[in-house]
Amino acid sequence: MAKKPDTILLGHGSGGQLMHDLISSLFMHYFSNPILDRHTDSALLKLGNDEIAFTTDAFVVDPIFFPGGDIGKLSVCGTVNDIAVSGAKPLYLSCSFIIEEGFPFSDLERIVKSMALEAKKAKVHIVTGDTKVVNKGKCDKIFITTTGIGSLDTRYKEISSGSGIKPGDQLIINGSIGDHGMAVMSARNELNLKASIDSDCASLNGLIEQALAVSDKIKFMRDATRGGLATILAELSANKEYGILINEEELLLNENVRGICELLGFDPLYVANEGKVLIVVDNADASRVLDALKAHELGKDSAIIGEVVSEHPGKSWINTAIGGKRIVDVLSGEQLPRIC
Amino acid sequence: MAKKPDTILLGHGSGGQLMHDLISSLFMHYFSNPILDRHTDSALLKLGNDEIAFTTDAFVVDPIFFPGGDIGKLSVCGTVNDIAVSGAKPLYLSCSFIIEEGFPFSDLERIVKSMALEAKKAKVHIVTGDTKVVNKGKCDKIFITTTGIGSLDTRYKEISSGSGIKPGDQLIINGSIGDHGMAVMSARNELNLKASIDSDCASLNGLIEQALAVSDKIKFMRDATRGGLATILAELSANKEYGILINEEELLLNENVRGICELLGFDPLYVANEGKVLIVVDNADASRVLDALKAHELGKDSAIIGEVVSEHPGKSWINTAIGGKRIVDVLSGEQLPRIC
Repeated sequence: MAKKPDTILLGHGSGGQLMHDLISSLFMHYFSNPILDRHTDSALLKLGNDEIAFTTDAFVVDPIFFPGGDIGKLSVCGTVNDIAVSGAKPLYLSCSFIIEEGFPFSDLERIVKSMALEAKKAKVHIVTGDTKVVNKGKCDKIFITTTGIGSLDTRYKEISSGSGIKPGDQLIINGSIGDHGMAVMSARNELNLKASIDSDCASLNGLIEQALAVSDKIKFMRDATRGGLATILAELSANKEYGILINEEELLLNENVRGICELLGFDPLYVANEGKVLIVVDNADASRVLDALKAHELGKDSAIIGEVVSEHPGKSWINTAIGGKRIVDVLSGEQLPRIC
Repeated sequence: MAKKPDTILLGHGSGGQLMHDLISSLFMHYFSNPILDRHTDSALLKLGNDEIAFTTDAFVVDPIFFPGGDIGKLSVCGTVNDIAVSGAKPLYLSCSFIIEEGFPFSDLERIVKSMALEAKKAKVHIVTGDTKVVNKGKCDKIFITTTGIGSLDTRYKEISSGSGIKPGDQLIINGSIGDHGMAVMSARNELNLKASIDSDCASLNGLIEQALAVSDKIKFMRDATRGGLATILAELSANKEYGILINEEELLLNENVRGICELLGFDPLYVANEGKVLIVVDNADASRVLDALKAHELGKDSAIIGEVVSEHPGKSWINTAIGGKRIVDVLSGEQLPRIC
């Protein structure tokens, strides 16, 4: 068991090392059961004759409205994506609101409209909910938890765990990195940044469906949210008999994102995305999956960014643009709180 | 559509009239779909060949530890009960935590242990979760959202809606009312009350299973949480061709609960319970269901408290202990914020 902290720190919600320690020392320890113990993002359940994926996420993003989205849209996309990357088809969502007394009704309506619109786009139904209101000052405007159910085709059961990954497999991502994190950052009033960056916040189930339709050799998928692409890479290679090698030159970075990252000292590899999926696919099907992704609105800028290698097992490395090589480790503290 | 308010009030989370207005004018309006539009507490879904119940609840109770329970235990019981009263068998829970920076790890561990213990008691598995941490002062200690999935025997599909209710049906409750609300109230430091009241916080699925096992004539069940027994009664009779008549003398009230209610001016009929279920059953099976409930630890004090009548259609009335009669209406404002 990891060392117990005295108090909860922002880093415990970062998606990085501290959060992993908290999950393993506390939640996995006390809640342990065969489904949870698989450590997949969505729980895969057998209900009668059907297999389903089940996942939950709390959204506490600050500010609640940002270029390219808002907490409502994000709460739908985030959960839809968690289901979709497990290989399941997202069907139903629940939503639970915690609202601060005095919150403007017009803002709530804007958020609810945005959720409804995104649910329609993603072809999911919001079927149940709950509302709690807390006294002024006891929460920050509004928090939303969405929970999703998707139906899982048993052919895709191993995608969550990535158990079929082997050297030679290719890594694909569907576009630029760091947009969501830097959009939220630049929308924070105190920074007074003029850069216009849109969050990439989007439901990826349609895109993922297109990829699955052309290949039965997709080994793993994960949306690169909290902790960014780096955290997925580090997790994916940890304790494995293979390594991962990424080519920085293949990573797409929007100019404004690069600018703000440099200004504020963020490494874009660790910055949250909300519309990016990392796909690991057998080399034989890589170009066919790449083409399928590129044919979709949300995958136009897809690229093969690296591959699974037999060198440096257990580690992810990146070939930097200037010719060096550096290791990709999980986030150790908190880079950017309340990003989702 | 109900008139739109300018801002969100505490009453919008009370379980009473304001919350109903918010749900219908906003959530039902924008999220409308055939499942949501059934207005049941749990959504009833068909997934492949299986029917499931799906429900979510946010828990923001203050204080987080109170006699008889804590926010963790409550977050398991509350969702287990919502599933169970729909006639379904609770199986899986997700949990999502929003934690304030600086929250003591020992308190979090106590809460997680309590959740694990209650999940074990209720025979459900916590299979997936999420953790967010917000800066100090941006939430009040800890909020937990649990979402549950249960499998639904199609024989019980109409229990959520109560569509089979007719005059002559009997109303049963499994014990005293008002305990949870007054336990939380008396635990609030500012009141300095010395009364010892334990919350009735408990998972009712075992009890409900025993009742369903002896009768196929259970027409409706609902746990009497926010808004208390009164709110269920008012909702149950609203716009119906039947009325409901309750006998106050049959309602069990613990002495300490009665005392605090009188002291603070609460009507116990509107005070939240977290371990009480109202069951409507055909007269022919009422005594058999009553006996089954009484045989269970959580139903020892069960009683028939009233019946469905053909008089005063659309309304619930109560015969008071002093010989009068008064109407039971839904809560119009906020009686007791952050009770669950």
